[in-house]
Amino acid sequence: MPLGGIGMNRIYMDHAATTALDKRVLKAMDPYFLEKFGNSSSTHFFGQEAFEALEKARAKIAKHINAEPEEIIFTSGGTEADNMALFGVMNSGQGKRIVTTEFEHHAVINSAKALEKQGFEAEFLPVTKDGFVETEKVVEALAKKTELVSVMHANNEIGTIQPISEIGKICHEKEALFHTDAVQTAGKEKLDVKKMNIDLLSASAHKFYGPKGTGFLFKRKEVKIKPLMQGGGHEFGLRPSTVNVAGVVGMAKALDIAVQGMEEENAGERKLRNMLVDSALEIKNSWLNGAREPRIAGNAALGFDFVEGQSLLIMLSDKGVAVSTGSACNSKGLKPSHVLLALGLPRVKCHGSLRFTLGRNNTKKDVEYVVGILPKIVERLREISPLGGEGNVQ
Amino acid sequence: MPLGGIGMNRIYMDHAATTALDKRVLKAMDPYFLEKFGNSSSTHFFGQEAFEALEKARAKIAKHINAEPEEIIFTSGGTEADNMALFGVMNSGQGKRIVTTEFEHHAVINSAKALEKQGFEAEFLPVTKDGFVETEKVVEALAKKTELVSVMHANNEIGTIQPISEIGKICHEKEALFHTDAVQTAGKEKLDVKKMNIDLLSASAHKFYGPKGTGFLFKRKEVKIKPLMQGGGHEFGLRPSTVNVAGVVGMAKALDIAVQGMEEENAGERKLRNMLVDSALEIKNSWLNGAREPRIAGNAALGFDFVEGQSLLIMLSDKGVAVSTGSACNSKGLKPSHVLLALGLPRVKCHGSLRFTLGRNNTKKDVEYVVGILPKIVERLREISPLGGEGNVQ
Repeated sequence: MPLGGIGMNRIYMDHAATTALDKRVLKAMDPYFLEKFGNSSSTHFFGQEAFEALEKARAKIAKHINAEPEEIIFTSGGTEADNMALFGVMNSGQGKRIVTTEFEHHAVINSAKALEKQGFEAEFLPVTKDGFVETEKVVEALAKKTELVSVMHANNEIGTIQPISEIGKICHEKEALFHTDAVQTAGKEKLDVKKMNIDLLSASAHKFYGPKGTGFLFKRKEVKIKPLMQGGGHEFGLRPSTVNVAGVVGMAKALDIAVQGMEEENAGERKLRNMLVDSALEIKNSWLNGAREPRIAGNAALGFDFVEGQSLLIMLSDKGVAVSTGSACNSKGLKPSHVLLALGLPRVKCHGSLRFTLGRNNTKKDVEYVVGILPKIVERLREISPLGGEGNVQ
Repeated sequence: MPLGGIGMNRIYMDHAATTALDKRVLKAMDPYFLEKFGNSSSTHFFGQEAFEALEKARAKIAKHINAEPEEIIFTSGGTEADNMALFGVMNSGQGKRIVTTEFEHHAVINSAKALEKQGFEAEFLPVTKDGFVETEKVVEALAKKTELVSVMHANNEIGTIQPISEIGKICHEKEALFHTDAVQTAGKEKLDVKKMNIDLLSASAHKFYGPKGTGFLFKRKEVKIKPLMQGGGHEFGLRPSTVNVAGVVGMAKALDIAVQGMEEENAGERKLRNMLVDSALEIKNSWLNGAREPRIAGNAALGFDFVEGQSLLIMLSDKGVAVSTGSACNSKGLKPSHVLLALGLPRVKCHGSLRFTLGRNNTKKDVEYVVGILPKIVERLREISPLGGEGNVQ
C-alpha cells in the first residue's frame, strides 16, 4: 500500500470515487447532530423539527430533477437505490425480462445477473468502442417484451454520457420502464426526469460533495416496486429504517450548491481536463478511453502502453497525487475493468489504464504538477516493465 | 402535530427512538468529513487513511462484543442488519423454518412474515404478560427442525431484557442459528457474543449517541449469509456500497464512550426511572407495562386508564417534554402496539400507554418537572375523555 501523501502534496484527482464534504454542506448538517437530533418519525417537537427538515430536503431534491417530493425515496447510497430499482420492479410481479448494458456499475450489472439466477431473463447490451450505448441496440432488444431497461447516465470509469432521453423515449414506446443510474451525473449534469423520460433514477450524495451513506431513488409515483427491506413504515413504506436526517439535509444542500454552480464548475473542470488529456497524449503510446465528448467534465480516463496502471497509481500516490485504475469499488481486485473490456480494449491495455477525475477544488497548478511528473513516471515504469518497453513494440 | 417546545423547555425522554450525537463522537467524526474524506476502497493515500480508520473502528467494535473484526459488517442501521440476518440466513439455502417472537421490532417481525410468504415456515412465540420470552417455549418450538431463531435482547417499547444466553444455548443444542436484535442494548448492556451464544447480532449507532444511518451486523464467521444487495465487493462481499467512514468512526467512538460509562450511566438512569415510575404509579389507575426488572435502565413504559396515549403525548410535547406512545417507527399509525397486544393488554389499555425513555443527559430536575405536570395532565384528559373517567369504572 502506498504511504505517500503524508507531509507532502495532497492532490486529489479521484472525484468519481468520492468527494470531500463541502464546508457549506457540513454547516447545513451541523444543527441536526447535537440539537435537532429527533427521529423524524416521532410525533413530539424533536421529531417534528426533524420531519420538517426531511421534507424540506425532499422537496428541494425533487425540484432539482423536476420530480414530485413523494417521488424521492432516501436510501443509504447509490448501490441501494440501484438495487431497489432493479429488484424492486422485477420482484413486484410485473415482469420477466430486463435489459441493461455491459458497462454498468456493478450495483446494476450484478443485480441483473442475480435476477437472471432468480429466473428472469437479462440482456446485456454491448457498447461502442467510444463508450456509448447505441439506441438501435435498445430498439432491437425491445422487440422482445421487456419490463425494465437500465442504462447509466454517465459511465463511472470513462465518463461518457449516454443518450438517456432517446433511450427513455424508446422504452416508453415499447411500454418498458426506464431506470438510469445517475450516480456520476447528479449535481454535474442537468437532470429532468420528465423531459428525459426517466421512471427511476439513482443518485449518491458523496459523489457531489455531500455525505457518504446517503443517496436517493427517484421513482415515478405510478411505478410499483417491492421494497428491498422489511421494517417500519418509513419512506412511504418503501424503505424502512430511521432516516439519517443530517445526511439527507446535507445531500439536499450539496445538490443545491452543485446545481447552482454547475455550468461554471463544468467549464473550469473541462478546461483543466483538456489540459491534462492533451498533455498526457503527448506521451508516446498513450490514449484516452472513450470519446472525449460528451463526457463528464472532470473525467480523463487515460491509457499508457507497457505500463501497469496499478504501478502508475502507486508512484503517483507516492508523489501526493490520488488517482485510480478503475472504479474504487473494484480497486482491490486486479481483474481487468469490465468497462474497458466492454469497449473492446485488449486485456493488456486495460491494465495500462488510469482514471483521473477532477473536481471542484482542483487548480491549474495541480494539473501542471501532474503533467510535469507523469511523463517521467511513465518512462521509468516502461524501462522496468516486463510488458516490454517502447523498443519492444512489434 | 404539536408545536410545543419552541422557546420553552426541551426535555427529551425518548431515547429509545433516537439519541443526540455525543459531542465527543462528532469530534471523532470531524476529520473524516473535510480532510480524510477518501473512499476506503481506493488504493491511494486518501483511500488508505479512510481504510485504516474503518478497520480501526471495526476492531474496536468487535472487541466491545468479544467478536473478531472480520465478523463485523457495517450497515445503514439496525433495520438493514436485521434484514441481512433473517433473509441472509434463510435465503442462503440452509433452511426451511424460522422461529421468532410476537413482540420483535417490525424489522424482524415483518421480515419473518415476508419469509413466510416466500414459502418458509415461521413461528412467532408468545411472551408473558411481564414481557419475557420463556425458554420452555423455545425448547418446544425447536422440537421441529429450525434453522434460525431470532429473539431481541431488550424490547424497544417496554425495555424488558430477555434470557438471551439461555436461548442461545438451547438453539445451539438443537443446531439452530441464533440471531438477536440488540438495537436497544448495544452500549447499554454488556454484550459478549461468545458467552451469550449469539451467531448474529444487530445494532444501530443512533441508539447509543452515535450517528443515524450507521449500524452493524455481527455474524460469526462460520455462518453463511446471502447478501441483501448486489454491487462492489465491500464488507467481505456481503454489503456493497461505499462505506460511510465518518459514520463508522462515530459509531465506534460512541460505543467506546457508552461501554466505558455503562455502569455509572445505568445506575443514574435506573434511579431516575424508578423515581419517575414510582411517582407515576401514584396516579390512580396507572400501571407499568412489563416487569420492572430486568429492564433497560432508562425505560418507563407506563399506562393510564381512560386516557389516549396520543393526547397525553401531545399535551406533554406542548409542555416541552418529548415522549412516545410506542416505537417511533410506527408513531404515525394509530394501530395499537403489537408489543402491548402480545403482553395480553386489552386494546383500550394499549391506547393509554406512554413510553418514557431516559438517557445520558436527563437530570433529576427533568424528572421532577415531568412528575410535577403529569398528574394534572392525566386528570385533565380523564375529565374530557370519551373513554369514561374514573367515575365510570365498572
